[in-house]
Amino acid sequence: HFNSCSFGINGRKQRGVVLVKAEAVSINPDIRKSEGKVVDSVVVTELAKPLTAYCRCWRSGTFPLCDGSHVKHNKATGDNVGPLLLKK
Amino acid sequence: HFNSCSFGINGRKQRGVVLVKAEAVSINPDIRKSEGKVVDSVVVTELAKPLTAYCRCWRSGTFPLCDGSHVKHNKATGDNVGPLLLKK
Ligand code: FES
Ligand code: FES
Repeated sequence: HFNSCSFGINGRKQRGVVLVKAEAVSINPDIRKSEGKVVDSVVVTELAKPLTAYCRCWRSGTFPLCDGSHVKHNKATGDNVGPLLLKK
Repeated sequence: HFNSCSFGINGRKQRGVVLVKAEAVSINPDIRKSEGKVVDSVVVTELAKPLTAYCRCWRSGTFPLCDGSHVKHNKATGDNVGPLLLKK
């Protein structure tokens, strides 16, 4: 997609629109970036609770679990992501 | 983060660098965008196979299941995301 921007040149404030081709962007900014690929495993017989939420927004402080951080991400970006719920 | 761009004004090719503050970006470009929040549930007793991979990259053609599309996303962006594996 494209972004527009306004800018100033030679100290004079000018206004214009520049089309900037956006590069494809990482969806994981921070989690375990030393790993080539972040894969997690759940042995479902070992689930402790009737319902456990797993993060799919890559913003959780308790990743791979969901801590509700998807709400802030969705508000900030207009996104609509949410967790995967595991039910025993 | 910031992007730079070059641009032309009044038909004359000019070159410069403009700092563009990037907006926070959606991580889900396409999946079920009519839903306010995409949440999926798995009743783990109903899992058919010993191992089932669930998508966390929002690029799968079989979402909520992983179809391997995270590989292409990671190559294109330098990202390191991967699925959640459910094991019976
Ligand atoms: S915190 Fe990531 S999906 Fe809830
Ligand atoms: S296709 Fe999305 S994690 Fe594999």
